[in-house]
Amino acid sequence: MIRLACDYQEGCHPKILEKLVQTNLESTPGYGTDAYCESAKAKIREACGAPKADVFLLIGGTQTNSTVIRAILRPCEGVIAVESGHINGHEGGAIEMGGHKVLTIAPHDGKMVAEELDKYITDTLTAPSWDHAVIPAMVYISQATETGSVYTLAELEAISAVCRRHKMPLFIDGARLGYALASEGADMTLKDIARLADVFYIGGTKVGALLGEAVVFTNTALSKSFFTIMKQGGAVLAKGRLLGIQFDTLFTDNLYFEISRHAVAMAMKLKEAFKAKGYRFYSESPSNQQFVILENEKLAEIEKSVQVSHWCKVDDKHMAVRFCTSWATTEETIDRVIELL
Amino acid sequence: MIRLACDYQEGCHPKILEKLVQTNLESTPGYGTDAYCESAKAKIREACGAPKADVFLLIGGTQTNSTVIRAILRPCEGVIAVESGHINGHEGGAIEMGGHKVLTIAPHDGKMVAEELDKYITDTLTAPSWDHAVIPAMVYISQATETGSVYTLAELEAISAVCRRHKMPLFIDGARLGYALASEGADMTLKDIARLADVFYIGGTKVGALLGEAVVFTNTALSKSFFTIMKQGGAVLAKGRLLGIQFDTLFTDNLYFEISRHAVAMAMKLKEAFKAKGYRFYSESPSNQQFVILENEKLAEIEKSVQVSHWCKVDDKHMAVRFCTSWATTEETIDRVIELL
Amino acid sequence: MIRLACDYQEGCHPKILEKLVQTNLESTPGYGTDAYCESAKAKIREACGAPKADVFLLIGGTQTNSTVIRAILRPCEGVIAVESGHINGHEGGAIEMGGHKVLTIAPHDGKMVAEELDKYITDTLTAPSWDHAVIPAMVYISQATETGSVYTLAELEAISAVCRRHKMPLFIDGARLGYALASEGADMTLKDIARLADVFYIGGTKVGALLGEAVVFTNTALSKSFFTIMKQGGAVLAKGRLLGIQFDTLFTDNLYFEISRHAVAMAMKLKEAFKAKGYRFYSESPSNQQFVILENEKLAEIEKSVQVSHWCKVDDKHMAVRFCTSWATTEETIDRVIELL
Amino acid sequence: MIRLACDYQEGCHPKILEKLVQTNLESTPGYGTDAYCESAKAKIREACGAPKADVFLLIGGTQTNSTVIRAILRPCEGVIAVESGHINGHEGGAIEMGGHKVLTIAPHDGKMVAEELDKYITDTLTAPSWDHAVIPAMVYISQATETGSVYTLAELEAISAVCRRHKMPLFIDGARLGYALASEGADMTLKDIARLADVFYIGGTKVGALLGEAVVFTNTALSKSFFTIMKQGGAVLAKGRLLGIQFDTLFTDNLYFEISRHAVAMAMKLKEAFKAKGYRFYSESPSNQQFVILENEKLAEIEKSVQVSHWCKVDDKHMAVRFCTSWATTEETIDRVIELL
Repeated sequence: MIRLACDYQEGCHPKILEKLVQTNLESTPGYGTDAYCESAKAKIREACGAPKADVFLLIGGTQTNSTVIRAILRPCEGVIAVESGHINGHEGGAIEMGGHKVLTIAPHDGKMVAEELDKYITDTLTAPSWDHAVIPAMVYISQATETGSVYTLAELEAISAVCRRHKMPLFIDGARLGYALASEGADMTLKDIARLADVFYIGGTKVGALLGEAVVFTNTALSKSFFTIMKQGGAVLAKGRLLGIQFDTLFTDNLYFEISRHAVAMAMKLKEAFKAKGYRFYSESPSNQQFVILENEKLAEIEKSVQVSHWCKVDDKHMAVRFCTSWATTEETIDRVIELL
Repeated sequence: MIRLACDYQEGCHPKILEKLVQTNLESTPGYGTDAYCESAKAKIREACGAPKADVFLLIGGTQTNSTVIRAILRPCEGVIAVESGHINGHEGGAIEMGGHKVLTIAPHDGKMVAEELDKYITDTLTAPSWDHAVIPAMVYISQATETGSVYTLAELEAISAVCRRHKMPLFIDGARLGYALASEGADMTLKDIARLADVFYIGGTKVGALLGEAVVFTNTALSKSFFTIMKQGGAVLAKGRLLGIQFDTLFTDNLYFEISRHAVAMAMKLKEAFKAKGYRFYSESPSNQQFVILENEKLAEIEKSVQVSHWCKVDDKHMAVRFCTSWATTEETIDRVIELL
Repeated sequence: MIRLACDYQEGCHPKILEKLVQTNLESTPGYGTDAYCESAKAKIREACGAPKADVFLLIGGTQTNSTVIRAILRPCEGVIAVESGHINGHEGGAIEMGGHKVLTIAPHDGKMVAEELDKYITDTLTAPSWDHAVIPAMVYISQATETGSVYTLAELEAISAVCRRHKMPLFIDGARLGYALASEGADMTLKDIARLADVFYIGGTKVGALLGEAVVFTNTALSKSFFTIMKQGGAVLAKGRLLGIQFDTLFTDNLYFEISRHAVAMAMKLKEAFKAKGYRFYSESPSNQQFVILENEKLAEIEKSVQVSHWCKVDDKHMAVRFCTSWATTEETIDRVIELL
Repeated sequence: MIRLACDYQEGCHPKILEKLVQTNLESTPGYGTDAYCESAKAKIREACGAPKADVFLLIGGTQTNSTVIRAILRPCEGVIAVESGHINGHEGGAIEMGGHKVLTIAPHDGKMVAEELDKYITDTLTAPSWDHAVIPAMVYISQATETGSVYTLAELEAISAVCRRHKMPLFIDGARLGYALASEGADMTLKDIARLADVFYIGGTKVGALLGEAVVFTNTALSKSFFTIMKQGGAVLAKGRLLGIQFDTLFTDNLYFEISRHAVAMAMKLKEAFKAKGYRFYSESPSNQQFVILENEKLAEIEKSVQVSHWCKVDDKHMAVRFCTSWATTEETIDRVIELL
């Protein structure tokens, strides 16, 4: 069985595992105060061109989103996201558990549009009885988005400018940031992300690690007491070195970017094949996730040999499904899938 | 200046005030354990045809909504409402403060449609990865709705049936329940409400009281520890008698229904005049709130002598405004407004 | 039956009721935006000698405590109180509902001691792994305390100095502030309270009003979005004028202070009688609450004619009970009780 | 440098690492739905003698405690723990973040005493105005405790009986459960734990795993929607197999118990040496943590070659410190430490 349902189906990139084996018997202090964590953070700051940034290593995406948002918002404040944003529908109410409403605007190909964000904020804060409603106070976007689309540099610049005009922190969910940076036609760099966001994270779980997300606060006014807020949210590992070793490895010799490039290249090959064979896409994605609309019969046939992810029902006869690549996806696998189409 | 902006612009119905004056020096135990509260609750049970119901007296609408919902939902569960539902946009995030997401479906003339509710629940609970998302676990509707529309008995029966099929409590926000029961063409009674809901409230603040909402749990499995949950939510008055005396008076000699009928009659007279003069309505309302779309110039002119409530901008040239009647609205006032139109 | 169980057994002071009757038919805007609220706030600022303070009118004590604390603390932060503090044991977990821990230190005659507070803060913030624990971030005291004791000016100055040294807001719960200001031997004024606290409230419910607590933020950096935070917490009355009219009356012609003085005078008369007859006190109180330890038999006898409040069991044979006076307590009542002792 | 500060200083037991290496390239479904998780759960049920138990794999201790407690308690309810309980002081307010108060009673050698628990519950639920206070609704104990002490079977039976009499779930924090089961003189088994608790967890992080805690609900009425509650709390790993593989290995060939026995044996050797040399203990511990009181000078000297954990200041001249053993502690290490004493 070929598995392309998601980018978290295998363990971790072999170089990470090798490092875990090599360091296993070393004795280090707990809770992320070890030298591997320090080294990883230094390399991340360097890669981001943000020497003064505060970096924290958390465990998973939902946890990271809820912890960052909870740390920033005050009571009665909400976070603006597109309806398809991960925090809005796929996190079991984690943001609401922290006491905050997710305020939504319509996505366009999975992305937020700066002008619409601007209008939403202005309309909300000038509506009659606006102060009886949740006050928008930060903005959340995902890069790449939940459906694989990627913001261009110009789009990010525009959103960041709107946020700064309204004095609202911009938080970029980078669970798949590597794949966005390596996406076809990508015109933005990690340094751009660091410059335009107030806080963002570099996803590890879906980009080669066993687990782990590195949060970078370039706006360090927002990170006060963040370690204890993490602790409160159950986001601190006793053996924090597990995160340090992984990110240290990912940010050595460009491994993070290499993994991302490989996965995107595999996805692009698949995408070309879909296109050539006339498949309809559920979203236009230049990154490692490809969303295709399949007839139920065709899907059943493909699923005899390939495990994919059911995204949503399009109509009674069609399902949107996800094909997802990662460091572990070989070219052979892609070739076999293409044959099956 | 004539004020028709809302139904909470004056003090309370004179009979309530009279009773407050008459009882002021009586000494009674605190926190709602007095005889007036007991009497009020007994009369409410009687009026609802629900002799075993648990009745609690709270202070205001937002507080009542959040306290009831918080008492019923478990972590990771959400409440279904229409997008225009009061809990979704006008309560400063009170439901989210309790840790819960408001799950929304589209309103039709301000109302939830039973078939759409059914489909929403089924789709949500059968979607891929449904257990990564907030689990719908109760249903909230308002009778009358936020825009003055009123559910018919058949509509309520249908919604209640969907809820019971899915084993989800139905909670009816009755901040303006009196006006719904007295609305033009109303075919449902208080006993129907009590029979079809698991929990609902009888609004006092907007129907003649200084403040106060009477929550009725006909499904008493849901009211466990509710007094302490109220206390925790700051919803218990030390001088609880203030609520008891008011509801006791409202439910003596049908005062609650009389107040409601008067206000609706005044609203209907106004509605007829709007219709006759060709005004466009923002919503079709048979109850005490009338929503009319006015040109900005006309609005400015009217506002020289009548205070109304700005509801929302319809477009650059038009505003939807609310005219609202209550026990305190005299026929003279209505006549003067009609002249101004 | 004589009732001295609490200071919220009757309605409101006749002057307030008179004003409610007189204004009942006036039409005013909702949610506390009316002229009575404005007037009340102006008078309160004046009485506090704090012309720039932000004043908000809330409904009850538990609600006020939880709303203020929730507005000030960030996640992972806690509020320091004495173990007997109202927020620690009598509010159904309202502070925890807002996500915060109540950090406790031992009371001395119901009061916090500045040196112990200082030591607690220092010890907590220098303990091993301190950042794995809740971070103390504000201080809560009650004036008068839950057992009727009253901080002297020197004690308040000392606590305020500790708070300022550690940059922690000081919040004074003044549910019975009037009785503290009027207490026997009181050496602090309302202006002192305003000067030494960052935020405090002037209790209405227990000092002559039907309901209502006036929150005064002298540190206005803390009151950002407070109205919406109140709304979220269900602490906004639609008929906000009810609060405005009451506080406007209480702060006209010194009524608030007059009520307080009368109640304290009645309590002192009772206290002298207890002393003279050799009763043991549960706490030393110069204010309107007197806590006496009674043998169970004696208590049963007294309760035939006087309703008092059971405070706590002292041992198998003794109960601590509260005798409480208010504006409504007449000298005749006190004389009759004294005869019974 | 010798490190005995904690039991989470090295990576994981070599057998676990070996299994991770061996399975790294296998492709499995995400979020804990893989075969390794299933196998681990089956082995855990077997080891617990609880074939119908619901088992869930979470990441860390604080997260597990807060997720379980949040799943069980309703609003206004609290959890009873001893003051030294991990949830009370070392979790950054995680329980309060979930909206609940930790209700504390005094520990005796780190343990809760059944009779005192019984009295606390009875007193709380019969106190005047008990329903204004947080309602105790579940009981939390740690086995082994935070200071290394271990409940005997009789003590556990007694606590469990009190809980069942009051219909309160008993939750046992087993972050170091292995060390309790292997402790000197231990008279209880894993099956006893499963029989006496309603829910408990088997700690992995501190007993040989990289991370992971296995929650066992023997009272399955409490586990409704627990997966989604975990998701909401950020406690679900995308690569859930990482937990499955670890627990599967730990529960193969008794590895979990073997690791525990080794660590306890090392600790006992150290304890004997301390005793023999006349050191004072901060607590009497038969398990892998030993708490010794050292003079500051002696501590400074020891710390030149051994890293220990500062537990708390005993007085100006003494510190209580923790020596902690694990699977990674060799007999050589212990011998070297003994020489240094």
